[in-house]
Amino acid sequence: MPDSVLVHSPATLSNLGCGFDVFGLALAAPYDAVRIRRTAEPGVRIQHLDPYGLPTEPTRNVAGVALLALLREVPEEIGFDVEITKGIMPGSGVGSSAASAAGAVVGANALLGNRFSKMQLVDFAMAGEVVASGARHADNIAPAIFGGFTIVRAVEPALDILALPAPPLWVAVVHPQIEVKTSDSRKVLPANVPLGLAVRQWANVAGLVAGFLTADYELIGRSMDDYIVEPARLPLIPGLAEARKRALAAGAIGGGISGSGPSIFMLNQTEATAQAVGEALGSVFAELGIAFHIYVGPVATEGARVICES
Amino acid sequence: MPDSVLVHSPATLSNLGCGFDVFGLALAAPYDAVRIRRTAEPGVRIQHLDPYGLPTEPTRNVAGVALLALLREVPEEIGFDVEITKGIMPGSGVGSSAASAAGAVVGANALLGNRFSKMQLVDFAMAGEVVASGARHADNIAPAIFGGFTIVRAVEPALDILALPAPPLWVAVVHPQIEVKTSDSRKVLPANVPLGLAVRQWANVAGLVAGFLTADYELIGRSMDDYIVEPARLPLIPGLAEARKRALAAGAIGGGISGSGPSIFMLNQTEATAQAVGEALGSVFAELGIAFHIYVGPVATEGARVICES
Repeated sequence: MPDSVLVHSPATLSNLGCGFDVFGLALAAPYDAVRIRRTAEPGVRIQHLDPYGLPTEPTRNVAGVALLALLREVPEEIGFDVEITKGIMPGSGVGSSAASAAGAVVGANALLGNRFSKMQLVDFAMAGEVVASGARHADNIAPAIFGGFTIVRAVEPALDILALPAPPLWVAVVHPQIEVKTSDSRKVLPANVPLGLAVRQWANVAGLVAGFLTADYELIGRSMDDYIVEPARLPLIPGLAEARKRALAAGAIGGGISGSGPSIFMLNQTEATAQAVGEALGSVFAELGIAFHIYVGPVATEGARVICES
Repeated sequence: MPDSVLVHSPATLSNLGCGFDVFGLALAAPYDAVRIRRTAEPGVRIQHLDPYGLPTEPTRNVAGVALLALLREVPEEIGFDVEITKGIMPGSGVGSSAASAAGAVVGANALLGNRFSKMQLVDFAMAGEVVASGARHADNIAPAIFGGFTIVRAVEPALDILALPAPPLWVAVVHPQIEVKTSDSRKVLPANVPLGLAVRQWANVAGLVAGFLTADYELIGRSMDDYIVEPARLPLIPGLAEARKRALAAGAIGGGISGSGPSIFMLNQTEATAQAVGEALGSVFAELGIAFHIYVGPVATEGARVICES
């Protein structure tokens, strides 16, 4: 068993339009790099080699909390030294906290002979999400651990995660530099939804799963429409409607808000289309005078993984 | 082109638990037999060779209304004579009206050189459903026309139906002889649902589609739970909770109310299990002193089809 490993842990899209709190998709980039070393000294020590000023006290750091949850299931007296280099900007809506938590537990598991299942790792990493967002949710953690397309069918009474292959897809993401707090983006959600609208939403959920499993890109595109969450969050993200319009004109299959925003994602069949769509997305925010980052890359078939050991 | 055809049109399950107004499944039995003959005389004439006393005036008969909708798209001056022998009891909740409407339009299409697509036939047959239930819905029509497992992703602005292969499955249905009017069973539904419950429901919808497409029987079973519609309809169907309990004990994968009831369906992996489950379902209603019918058969891969021509 190695003493130290370096893990790359991917950014992830959650919701994918219609599937609020359920669907997830892993991206090849950006990613967080997590170096983790087993120590004889118990406990967890965290360093951040990035400029984001995140808390490094283990009980307030998503990776720290996830590792403490894992250590509670380890009888040996050991600990971990962790160095995190975030490639995923916090607050971007592409699973930044999930990536750090997932990377940490995948690395720790490698240092422990891979004794835990992926489902257990999701469970540990979800403890980290509570620190980040106040809720124990798995929609970013699941794809960060399993890769590909994931369905969180249930969190309680037991975790039930389905990891399914995604057809080849290229993703364009624009991250406008505006702050949307997860707590704010939860507050605007309706407490109740009309049954008829819920039916239209789960019809799209059914269509999206069928589209992914049969590699039917047109079906994926027309099934992503979100009748419930996106309309509520639209006022939080200036430029969203125009961004979607230009992205579709540039050839995107479809897309929407990534997680609770502010990032906007678009799925595409080819790299060339994804590049053009990325430019189309960026043009909207350039005109609005809002700084932005663009990410273009394929869907990742693997989740967080050990890149090298020593 | 034949002058006359005999069509067998299958019973269908709608909703399948979690997928209210969206999912459908075609059964090999029971079925309606529809004999239809092309006539030089315009209009539609209907005879029922069964004991159910259904209206035969074309504008009040589901098959009649469906055929009148079809004839509006036929430039020739022709008409149809129709003889219907219902094998599916009206009001049973296994798509009785859908079967007659679907059988009629599939037969008429054969007499017209199959000029209409299946999607157009669904559209015509849905006009018949309005007579039966007051609503233009396709969740029984879709499997009655396409066979197998169907998803009605959208009805408006355009019909979007996905016909997917179902893994081998045996269905046990109990039809207790109690009357549940579709209109009553709609009335008990909540106008609004809590967002959290809607999310749990669409997580199951996602799981059920994934289960069907990957032939994962356990996933199908645990994904069928309906948090919204079945709880509201439970009081309308005495014996439902006990029937489910005994069916699961006898080996059923899962099940629920068929359509708006009163029939209860259970999915099973083998014929032997389905037979045992059928007996278990029947035992509940025997003890309650409620007369019942049991149907056991496989999922039908085909929908309504021409059995012979002359």
